[in-house]
Amino acid sequence: MAETHPHTGDRLHRRGLMFILSSPSGAGKTSIARAILESDDEISPSISATTRAPRPGEVDGKDYYFVSQPEFDRMAEENEFYEWAHVFGKSYGTPKAAIREALKQGRDFLFDIDWQGTQQLSQKAGTDVVRVFILPPSLDELQRRLIGRGTDSEKIIASRMARAQAEISHWDSYDYVVVNEDFDACLQEVRQILCAERLKRVRQTGLIPFVRELLKEEDEE
Amino acid sequence: MAETHPHTGDRLHRRGLMFILSSPSGAGKTSIARAILESDDEISPSISATTRAPRPGEVDGKDYYFVSQPEFDRMAEENEFYEWAHVFGKSYGTPKAAIREALKQGRDFLFDIDWQGTQQLSQKAGTDVVRVFILPPSLDELQRRLIGRGTDSEKIIASRMARAQAEISHWDSYDYVVVNEDFDACLQEVRQILCAERLKRVRQTGLIPFVRELLKEEDEE
Repeated sequence: MAETHPHTGDRLHRRGLMFILSSPSGAGKTSIARAILESDDEISPSISATTRAPRPGEVDGKDYYFVSQPEFDRMAEENEFYEWAHVFGKSYGTPKAAIREALKQGRDFLFDIDWQGTQQLSQKAGTDVVRVFILPPSLDELQRRLIGRGTDSEKIIASRMARAQAEISHWDSYDYVVVNEDFDACLQEVRQILCAERLKRVRQTGLIPFVRELLKEEDEE
Repeated sequence: MAETHPHTGDRLHRRGLMFILSSPSGAGKTSIARAILESDDEISPSISATTRAPRPGEVDGKDYYFVSQPEFDRMAEENEFYEWAHVFGKSYGTPKAAIREALKQGRDFLFDIDWQGTQQLSQKAGTDVVRVFILPPSLDELQRRLIGRGTDSEKIIASRMARAQAEISHWDSYDYVVVNEDFDACLQEVRQILCAERLKRVRQTGLIPFVRELLKEEDEE
């Protein structure tokens, strides 16, 4: 973000973006997200506020913002979340404040959220949002991956499969779709989307003064 | 385009796109376009119709479609061009017919046109169009490149510089902007844009039957 030019200032400065990855559980979204976050230092995970208790090792302000229910309710009421939801009696939400400032500085955020969160975020964040849906190559393969984890009972896997289909049915509200048949190919596609989106004119705020200088220079000659 | 799946058919099938590269003369657009066309076999140059005479070595249907003025006028009148213009007494236009069919088959087309052609094309081709503007790193550098060609007089270079600024002033009607400071970096950015745009949901027509199968499979189990 720091390359400058004597005449033109910081033409590489750009507005950050909100990069949403959604997929049914088991389609590989979490591994893709981790690989992106580890290899790209312009993007950070979005940090949710939650009313659930911290688990051992979880750090406030890093894993989550841990807040009380009254505080969460106040934030929801005062429109301080991009999106929020109640899940199993606990509340989760994405606070606007920190993200809004960082976007101006050119920081990107990765969101690992479902179609409902995506819909709320899109309504509130407009062109800052880039929505990517990851599809499994087949339902058989999805089921194999869920079984392969070895953590879930048959019954839970059946319910995950049903939820997966419900999630997939919303694929058409996303900007981009990638099929995770091969992890490396899928990761490369997701990276290309992220890099291309950074080149969108509307994000490249540093080009506005740069082009102004380009158009002025000749008048002076 | 040919990978198929027993259940899902050709999920990689997609609608082609119209990839526009514009820049002031000397910003490197022609070299970028050539490098893309040589390395990517899903994209072809768009072929214009023109009323000017073929130059030695030019092949009808490859370099241009050479047509008579009455034929050109008829095509313009019957709305058979995406865009057309008169330049120095000769007419140039992009015929719709061949492109329209090929887009359905998943072929992309590269357009090396100015902002006026881009505007006409956008109006007629909607979401099939992807617009990329290439900026020079500075006007000094642009002038150096024009002088470096060694083909133009001082007077012609001055008029090219004025035209360059007029072209640059339309940078904000493009979807993406790249600065050609370093050829390889610029080429990589243009390639990323092309690859990402191919992953847009609206182009991935092969995913419609694929997802339909994903949603059906489980019902049958």
